[in-house]
Amino acid sequence: MKEELMELFEQRAFARLRQELANLHPADVAELLQEVDADALAVFFRLLPKEEAAETFVELDGDLQQQLIERFSDKELKAVLDELYADDAVDFLEEMPASVVKRVLRHADPQLRADINQLLRYPKDSAGSIMTTEYVDLKKDMTVEDAFLRIRKVGTDRETVYTCYVVDAARHLLGIVTAKDLLLATPETPISELMETQIISVETHDDREETTRAFDRYDLLALPVVDHEGRLVGIVTVDDALDILQEEATEDMQKMAAMTPAEESYFKTSVWVHAKNRIPWLLFLMLSAAVTGMILSYYEAAFQALPLLVSFVPMLMSTGGNCGTQSATMIIRGMALDEIKVTDLLRALWKELQIALLCGAILAAVNGLRIYFQYGRNLEMTLVIVLTLIATIVIAKILGCLLPMLAKLVKLDPAVMAAPIISTCVDAFSVTIYFQIAVKLLSELQ
Amino acid sequence: MKEELMELFEQRAFARLRQELANLHPADVAELLQEVDADALAVFFRLLPKEEAAETFVELDGDLQQQLIERFSDKELKAVLDELYADDAVDFLEEMPASVVKRVLRHADPQLRADINQLLRYPKDSAGSIMTTEYVDLKKDMTVEDAFLRIRKVGTDRETVYTCYVVDAARHLLGIVTAKDLLLATPETPISELMETQIISVETHDDREETTRAFDRYDLLALPVVDHEGRLVGIVTVDDALDILQEEATEDMQKMAAMTPAEESYFKTSVWVHAKNRIPWLLFLMLSAAVTGMILSYYEAAFQALPLLVSFVPMLMSTGGNCGTQSATMIIRGMALDEIKVTDLLRALWKELQIALLCGAILAAVNGLRIYFQYGRNLEMTLVIVLTLIATIVIAKILGCLLPMLAKLVKLDPAVMAAPIISTCVDAFSVTIYFQIAVKLLSELQ
Repeated sequence: MKEELMELFEQRAFARLRQELANLHPADVAELLQEVDADALAVFFRLLPKEEAAETFVELDGDLQQQLIERFSDKELKAVLDELYADDAVDFLEEMPASVVKRVLRHADPQLRADINQLLRYPKDSAGSIMTTEYVDLKKDMTVEDAFLRIRKVGTDRETVYTCYVVDAARHLLGIVTAKDLLLATPETPISELMETQIISVETHDDREETTRAFDRYDLLALPVVDHEGRLVGIVTVDDALDILQEEATEDMQKMAAMTPAEESYFKTSVWVHAKNRIPWLLFLMLSAAVTGMILSYYEAAFQALPLLVSFVPMLMSTGGNCGTQSATMIIRGMALDEIKVTDLLRALWKELQIALLCGAILAAVNGLRIYFQYGRNLEMTLVIVLTLIATIVIAKILGCLLPMLAKLVKLDPAVMAAPIISTCVDAFSVTIYFQIAVKLLSELQ
Repeated sequence: MKEELMELFEQRAFARLRQELANLHPADVAELLQEVDADALAVFFRLLPKEEAAETFVELDGDLQQQLIERFSDKELKAVLDELYADDAVDFLEEMPASVVKRVLRHADPQLRADINQLLRYPKDSAGSIMTTEYVDLKKDMTVEDAFLRIRKVGTDRETVYTCYVVDAARHLLGIVTAKDLLLATPETPISELMETQIISVETHDDREETTRAFDRYDLLALPVVDHEGRLVGIVTVDDALDILQEEATEDMQKMAAMTPAEESYFKTSVWVHAKNRIPWLLFLMLSAAVTGMILSYYEAAFQALPLLVSFVPMLMSTGGNCGTQSATMIIRGMALDEIKVTDLLRALWKELQIALLCGAILAAVNGLRIYFQYGRNLEMTLVIVLTLIATIVIAKILGCLLPMLAKLVKLDPAVMAAPIISTCVDAFSVTIYFQIAVKLLSELQ
C-alpha cells in the first residue's frame, strides 16, 4: 500500500494519489505521513479532502504538525482549523511552541478561539482539559421533531449527535436524551418526557481517571462535564476515554517499573529523555541497595567462617523481590480499577498473609529438599533456609500489599510504591533475618 | 445510599424501594446486590423493572448470578433471558455449571438459543467470542426513510442503532451507514449513496486484542465481525472493547510480574487460586537464582580473601534487575500498543544501548565517588565497581529489550519474558563479570 502511494507520488500522478488517499482512513494516512520527507508531507497533505485533512492532522505527531503549520499559508491554516474540534485543537496546541500557538489563535474563528482559551485553562489531567465544547444541546420544551431539526442544523460540527443534552437558559444540565430514544419515539413526544434525569456526570476539575472510570462502569458513549454549579461546560466522548484508559495503563506500568512516565511513544522519545526518566529512580534504588550491602558487611565474620552462606543470598533476594512484585502489582492494579479500596486494607493484608504462608510453605519445602540433598544432608543449613524463606515471603507480600495502600491513603499514586522499591526494602529485611537465624542455629558459627 | 435502601428493605417498604431502585444505574444496583444476603438478593432483584433487571443481572458476579438463577421460577428466568443480548448471555453462561447452562438454554427462545450456541463455538479470546449478533442490517436499495423505518422496527433490541450494516442477500457486508449520516441526509437519499464502503472489520477467529486495537486506532463505536468469506456474523461495540482493553492491560501487568493472570477480581479470587497463579513462577525463578548462588560459591576464594567484595553484590543485583525491568516494560508495552514491531529489533537495541551507556555512566560516576571516599580512596575497588556497573547496565537493558522481542518473534506473548526472568538472567551475568574483573584488577587477589 505505502509503496504504491509513494510510486504515484514519484510519478507525480496526483489525481490518482488524491483518489487513493481519500479512500484511506485518516489514522492510516497519518501513519504513512510519519514516514515521508517534509516536502512529500506537504504535498500529500494538500491532496487530502478538507475534512479528512483535519482528521489526519490530529493523528500526526507533534513535530510533523509543527512542520506542516510552518509551511501552511494563512488560508490553509484557517481551512484546517475550521474543521478541528476544540479538544483536538487544544491537544496539539499543548505541544506547540508559543509562536505557533499565537499564529493558530490569530487565525481561529472567534468561537473556536474562545473555546480553546477556555480548555487551556483547566489543569492538565483534569476532566476539563480533555472535554470538547461541541455537543448538541436541547431545550426541555422541545418535541422530538424539534430535536431532530436541531440535530440536523448543528449536528455536522458536533463530536457526537448520539447523546443530546437538555439545558435551561442558564445552561444547567437538566437531562440527557439519546438519539436512540429520539429515533424510537413519535415526533410529537416532548423532550421533557423522554429525557433521563438521573445524570452521570463529572466536574471540570475531577481527575481524568474519574472520567474513564465512569465510562468503564456505566458503558457510556459520552459523559457530560459540569462546573460546580451544575452548568454544562462540555462533554467527553468514548473515543477519548479509550485513549486515556490506554495512556493511564501505560503510565502505571512505567511507574511500577520505577520510571517517570514518558509523554510520547517509545521511538518518539529521545535517548536523553528516556535516560532522564530512568536515572533518578535507578540512582535512588542503587544507593538504597547499599544498605543491604552494609548489612552483609556487618555479618562478615559469619560468612568468613561459613562461606556457603553467601551462595544463598541471590536466591533469597530474588525470591523476596518476586513475591513483593506480585503482591504490589495485584494491589496497585486492583486500586486503579477500583476493585480494592483503602478501606479494604486489613482484608487485603489478611489475604496476602494467607497467600504468603501457602507460597512460603511450598517454596520452602522444595528448596529445603534441594539443599538437604545437595549439601550433604546438612539439616541445620536446611532449617536456616526454610525459616528465612518463609519469613522473607511473608514480609515481601505484606510490604507489597501495605506500601501501595499506604501511598494511596496519603493521596500519593499507589504505582509509585513500585515493585523495585519494595524489593529493595525486602532485601534489607531478608538478609538481616537470614544472618540472624544463621548465627543462632548453625553450630559452625557458635 | 446503601444504608437508606437497606432500611427500606428492613421496613418492608417495598413500594418506596422499587422506586429508589428504578432510579439507580444497573451498575450501582449490582454493586449494592453484591453485599446483601441471598434472601435480600432475590427480593431486591424482583423489585427491579424488567429491562433494568436484565442489565443488573449482567453486571453481577458469577456466584450471585448462579444463586439467582437457582431461585428463579421458569417464568422469571425467561423474563430475564428475553431482555439479554446474546453476547451478555454467553459471558455469564461461560462461568456457569453445566446444569445451569442446560436450564438456561431450555428456556431461551429459539433465536437466542441459536445465537448463544453459535457464539459459544468460537475460541476464547477470539473476536467471535466477544461479538454480539444483534445489529441493525439494511439493504442497498433502501432509502434513508426506509432505514429509519427499519431502525424503529428492530432497534429496541439491538445493541447499537448508531452504526447500521448494509448486507446483500447472502449477508456479505457491503457497506456501513452511521445514524449521523442518516440524520443529516434527506429522506429520499438511497443508502447505496450514503454508505461507506471502505470497511474496517475483523474476522471471527482474529484475536480479541486486534479488535480493541481497531477501536483505539480508528475511534469506532462498533466494529463488524465477518467470516472468511466476508459475510457479516456480528459486531463488537465500544463498551465491550473498553472492558477488554482494561482486561488486557491487567493481564499484561500480571504476566510482567511473573504471575498467571487471574480470571476474576482480587477479592473474588480465592487464596488458593492466588497462590496457584503465583507459585509456579516463584519456584522456577527461585531455582534459577540458585545458579547465581553457585557462581558466587565458585569465587569463594576471592571473597574469603577480600570480604568487602560481598557487600557490593546486592547493589549490583538490584541495579541490574531494575535496569532490565525498565527496558522490558517499555518494550512489552510498546509492542502491546503496536508502537514497536518485531522488525524494529535492531533499532530498539541500538536505542537501549545508548540509554544504557548514559545510565551506566551516571550511575557509575555517582557510585564510584561514593565508594572511593567511603572506602579509604581505594582506587582499584572503585574501578572494579565502575566497570561492573556499566557492563551490568548494558547487559540488563539489552536483555530487557531482546528477550521480549524474541518471544514475540517466536509467537509467544512478550509479557511472559517478564522483568523477574530478565533480572534472574542479569544477576548471573553481573556476578560473573564482577568477580572476573575483581580477580583481574585487585592486588589483594593476585
